[in-house]
Amino acid sequence: MSHEQARRILDAGIAKAEEIGQPMNIAVVDDGGHLVAFGRMDGAIRASIDISTRKAVTSVLMNAPTAALTDLVQPGAELYGLEHTAGGMVAFGGGIPLHRDGELVGAVGVSAGSVAQDVAVATAAAAALDS
Amino acid sequence: MSHEQARRILDAGIAKAEEIGQPMNIAVVDDGGHLVAFGRMDGAIRASIDISTRKAVTSVLMNAPTAALTDLVQPGAELYGLEHTAGGMVAFGGGIPLHRDGELVGAVGVSAGSVAQDVAVATAAAAALDS
Amino acid sequence: MSHEQARRILDAGIAKAEEIGQPMNIAVVDDGGHLVAFGRMDGAIRASIDISTRKAVTSVLMNAPTAALTDLVQPGAELYGLEHTAGGMVAFGGGIPLHRDGELVGAVGVSAGSVAQDVAVATAAAAALDS
Amino acid sequence: MSHEQARRILDAGIAKAEEIGQPMNIAVVDDGGHLVAFGRMDGAIRASIDISTRKAVTSVLMNAPTAALTDLVQPGAELYGLEHTAGGMVAFGGGIPLHRDGELVGAVGVSAGSVAQDVAVATAAAAALDS
Repeated sequence: MSHEQARRILDAGIAKAEEIGQPMNIAVVDDGGHLVAFGRMDGAIRASIDISTRKAVTSVLMNAPTAALTDLVQPGAELYGLEHTAGGMVAFGGGIPLHRDGELVGAVGVSAGSVAQDVAVATAAAAALDS
Repeated sequence: MSHEQARRILDAGIAKAEEIGQPMNIAVVDDGGHLVAFGRMDGAIRASIDISTRKAVTSVLMNAPTAALTDLVQPGAELYGLEHTAGGMVAFGGGIPLHRDGELVGAVGVSAGSVAQDVAVATAAAAALDS
Repeated sequence: MSHEQARRILDAGIAKAEEIGQPMNIAVVDDGGHLVAFGRMDGAIRASIDISTRKAVTSVLMNAPTAALTDLVQPGAELYGLEHTAGGMVAFGGGIPLHRDGELVGAVGVSAGSVAQDVAVATAAAAALDS
Repeated sequence: MSHEQARRILDAGIAKAEEIGQPMNIAVVDDGGHLVAFGRMDGAIRASIDISTRKAVTSVLMNAPTAALTDLVQPGAELYGLEHTAGGMVAFGGGIPLHRDGELVGAVGVSAGSVAQDVAVATAAAAALDS
């Protein structure tokens, strides 16, 4: 995940966020879960600095979108409590792992809107990986 | 958020707490979530030192009253697990963000009574922002 | 340490800080090291929110002024590393334990100026315990 | 500190880092110490993600460049141990507070090169605040 790629992913997310009119925090991490690029748009809540970054890290650590974890961590479900492991993970949508040729190369995390909005922006951002 | 304003907000909260006969912890933070004034009334439980401060910080980080988070973080709800992000947030009532001319200028957090009492005291405190 | 006493100690510190022209963070804790009253004056640095509180807590934990620890924690001295124990302590001046009839009843911590200024303000604040 | 301003500061830092041939991590925070923009250039060490961000936060918390702290925290100096307070601060150069009309509006932190290089890049970045 080069800085140039991460910036392109970040900017694709910002463009989508502007299109839907919801300011966002957007984080792009490499395949080790380490931050490469981050932006907080004007008016986006500050709690989502951590949440967006943590969604991206979670996507790398689990090699799965964070939305895929939601059902698994509910009371009575198989992985109840998972989000308290590995330094703290996020189990609601907005984090998406990035793959190239089947290999994990990083992840993007988005937060500040509804979960549906976060996922929409993260999806648009992820699509810019090889654009 | 000047010290003089924060002290006025704190004292309005104390007056309301005395009126309802419930000793409270009351914290006032600036728009970055940094403490400006704090008071623990005689007989108020010590756990609420952290809870009141964390409610105020949560209100800044989310730019929302903590009472607005309660339904969102329940099992099965959209933001289940939210309170474990951003350094630890509180998702029950008693934290209220403070705005002036539409801008976030700080927050007040109250804890030690029932949630209804905490919200009542925080509301009275918040009303003193520009009194 | 009642809230009324803590507020009097805090206000005596604020008066001294205004007299010397150095805005301060001032924390008053009870004999368990739990916060009772806190104020951050306009212009006082935010790092000192934690430092002033930690000085007060350290004074209770050690039952000694924090200035008494400075020489003891230097490289080669007897308690080198002490400040990393007990949840993190501060080993430079500005924290003073408060006693009544030989019993520890709380402490005051002051931070944001030079160590000499912090000690001067903490000393003035402590003098208000039974004023 | 708007996102547009933070991005301009970040990009000015990147340009300087490219000029001196040292890849850097560069973080821009608002006046509450909350991240607004971040970039890690290709080849910059990962430890500096945290170090650059922490330098920016330290600059806000202390309202001072981190280089100004170096002498103060040495063994035997007045603030020995300071860097372990306030959630962990950095006491070597590369963090610079940003002011406008005498008011603190944020800070920039740079890390991955020598301290001299970090300071040079942070200085170039800071100069872009109102460019």
